[in-house]
Amino acid sequence: MTMTETLTHVHDLVERTDLVELAGFLSDAPLPEVSELLDRLPAADAAVVFRLLSKDTAIDVFERLEPAAQADLITELGDAEVVGVFEALDPDDVVGLLDELPAKVTKRFLRELSPRQRRATAPILGFPQGSIGRRMTPEYLTAHPDENVATVLERVRRNEASAETIYVVPVVDASRTLVGIASLRDLLRAEPEEFVHEVMNAATSVVAYEDDEAAARRCLDVGLIAMPVVDREERLIGLLTIDDAVRIIRAAEDEDRARAGGHEPLRRTYLLTPILSITKARGPWLLVLAISAILTVQVLHIYEAPLEELTTLALFIPLLTGTGGNTGSQAATTLTRAIAMNEIGNRDVGRVAFKELRTGFSLGIALGTLGFVIATLVFGIDIGMVIGLTLLAICTMSAVVGGVMPIIAKLCRVDPAVFSTPFISTFCDATGLIIYFSIAKAILGL
Amino acid sequence: MTMTETLTHVHDLVERTDLVELAGFLSDAPLPEVSELLDRLPAADAAVVFRLLSKDTAIDVFERLEPAAQADLITELGDAEVVGVFEALDPDDVVGLLDELPAKVTKRFLRELSPRQRRATAPILGFPQGSIGRRMTPEYLTAHPDENVATVLERVRRNEASAETIYVVPVVDASRTLVGIASLRDLLRAEPEEFVHEVMNAATSVVAYEDDEAAARRCLDVGLIAMPVVDREERLIGLLTIDDAVRIIRAAEDEDRARAGGHEPLRRTYLLTPILSITKARGPWLLVLAISAILTVQVLHIYEAPLEELTTLALFIPLLTGTGGNTGSQAATTLTRAIAMNEIGNRDVGRVAFKELRTGFSLGIALGTLGFVIATLVFGIDIGMVIGLTLLAICTMSAVVGGVMPIIAKLCRVDPAVFSTPFISTFCDATGLIIYFSIAKAILGL
Repeated sequence: MTMTETLTHVHDLVERTDLVELAGFLSDAPLPEVSELLDRLPAADAAVVFRLLSKDTAIDVFERLEPAAQADLITELGDAEVVGVFEALDPDDVVGLLDELPAKVTKRFLRELSPRQRRATAPILGFPQGSIGRRMTPEYLTAHPDENVATVLERVRRNEASAETIYVVPVVDASRTLVGIASLRDLLRAEPEEFVHEVMNAATSVVAYEDDEAAARRCLDVGLIAMPVVDREERLIGLLTIDDAVRIIRAAEDEDRARAGGHEPLRRTYLLTPILSITKARGPWLLVLAISAILTVQVLHIYEAPLEELTTLALFIPLLTGTGGNTGSQAATTLTRAIAMNEIGNRDVGRVAFKELRTGFSLGIALGTLGFVIATLVFGIDIGMVIGLTLLAICTMSAVVGGVMPIIAKLCRVDPAVFSTPFISTFCDATGLIIYFSIAKAILGL
Repeated sequence: MTMTETLTHVHDLVERTDLVELAGFLSDAPLPEVSELLDRLPAADAAVVFRLLSKDTAIDVFERLEPAAQADLITELGDAEVVGVFEALDPDDVVGLLDELPAKVTKRFLRELSPRQRRATAPILGFPQGSIGRRMTPEYLTAHPDENVATVLERVRRNEASAETIYVVPVVDASRTLVGIASLRDLLRAEPEEFVHEVMNAATSVVAYEDDEAAARRCLDVGLIAMPVVDREERLIGLLTIDDAVRIIRAAEDEDRARAGGHEPLRRTYLLTPILSITKARGPWLLVLAISAILTVQVLHIYEAPLEELTTLALFIPLLTGTGGNTGSQAATTLTRAIAMNEIGNRDVGRVAFKELRTGFSLGIALGTLGFVIATLVFGIDIGMVIGLTLLAICTMSAVVGGVMPIIAKLCRVDPAVFSTPFISTFCDATGLIIYFSIAKAILGL
């Protein structure tokens, strides 16, 4: 069965309240499939499925859910069930979940947390939203550089259940300053009587206040199963695990991708998202873009006289604005990506502008020459020159605008992805029209 | 130092051939930073840096590089150095690298591989490019269900160096059929005398012929550190590790993102990519798009008579085509994503079309009403009606086209991302103009 078929099947069973069959189906399904199912089902269906799972399975599955799906599910469950879930979750997952819930609901559940859970979540809640401190786990094992390997391995075995990962053991000195890192592999490879400081490696760490996306990207670059999180004094306070890093990046990239396409990301799978939610994710963007496109009407209004004199000019409008939009969005997607990957900083704006100027000019020479030849053959040399020169100017202008806008967006603390394709297209449309009619007036003497 | 500064600094040192300072700098830098450096440096610089690394560090660093950067580096190194690298690499990395190199170079190096490496790489090379069999590691540990935990743990310790990961131990029966999976954590938690079958969990696996992106996505969904790869008879033949899964997905998403922006992905960091390479990545796309945009010129040519009669119609062309393009690309990015996530299959084309029809209609009603009111106020009720109705029709049409095109692309075995934003915009531009002038002719009686 494909996932779509499974979803339909489970939805049918819930509709028919055939819980015996549903429970049978669920007990045979592997954990990851059940959690994917819950991620994708409407919250009401998901709650029914969730209640049919055994207690241990339920928590395992819940931990794998996307935060949005967790929050939706929580709002469908009764208070007693919710407290049970919170008690069993890892503290960083509790915090992630609290961030998703409405403030009123958050407050109520925080009151109901056990002292143990409250102690574990408090340090995480102290970091600002969007920082990696919010996403780290405070439950990990540590080793001291002067311990021997046997002692550490024994500790790993004894405390296995309380740590989120046992495959990475940060090494700290007496003041909890991070001095190195030992993987379980390093420890198993070593002789039992070796000291930790002989076995450990230099650690790459992140500071808890760092942006979560940047930190997660570093974690994946390093290729470690977990990365230590430290405070500003280099003291160890948490661990970022690779699966949490993958989640952070996925959520961030889904958002980027959606915004580059001119809408907000959907929180659930497409086929199960109601028309109204899809319309809400797209409508405001479309509206703002259409309103900014009124600019193009105004620009053309200014040039109505030459347009009336030579209607042929109108024929090229979509071609020219389209090419400008495409050139701009090519540059914008490249730069948005480079910014996300931390390749480009604010100070590079001049270098980027110059590079895009040359790139846009090269592209413009190629396209302009072609446009000149074709337009000359069909409409004569005057129109040919106008089209050729306009293409050259528009490509150059659009590449620079498309390259620089994402950096400016970042400077203004706006998500660069917002400035990707659609807004740059609209901006380049209006500017392109001004260039077009200025060149046409100059050459054709309208 | 930011990465950009580091890159400039290293590039300067190479230019000045200040190798003492460079070696000093490298020996202080953490491994991940050095590999990021090599990923981003031009190949000639990278070769100099690579030669300055100690032998062990060099291999560690090389393994972390992107395949494209590995291939570039290989072509810069001498034959003896290359053979040294090949011998030390994991077999799946050797294969990944061979895939990147030109066929002639591949052949030469395959001949120079040691018998051990050839034995290890041969099974991987047997799978088609783009399948997960190409990306799995054939070097792993296994356990038998009737062994006890102590025996397996001892095996893990003894064979630690030869396996790519030791954190996941697939469990196979006498015929090598996969019967379960035991994480190192499960094994450490268990009593030494327990049997493996009491400790192991049900395994989610992928078949070696599956598409690598889909398999990698499953690996991340499952949240395991490694996932077993089996043949069509469920026999274990390899292991897909989470860091390889992350690499596969990153490469695939970079490609999707670039194509959605209307260009090919750059193989290196933006600031270090020469203008010529950027132009090559963008030029062909821009050209094809511009040539398809000639369609819009032809459509407008047909309607030149009504345009001459009422030039006001020209004013709305960029607004209307822009809105169509935006609606289409909203739908296209959503559906491209849903296809990549395996939410949508070929058979869903009807459901998608109907869903987009309703979404586009809702958006069209909202935008059309607004367009009607504004255009009526400025240009009178006739133009108002034309604009309002055109917006309604264009939004509906573009949403359906944008939603359906990626599925059709997939059916035709074209990357759905190619059909994302730019081509759909161009297509919707031309169709939108036909709708516009048909409505205008009907209402205004031109």
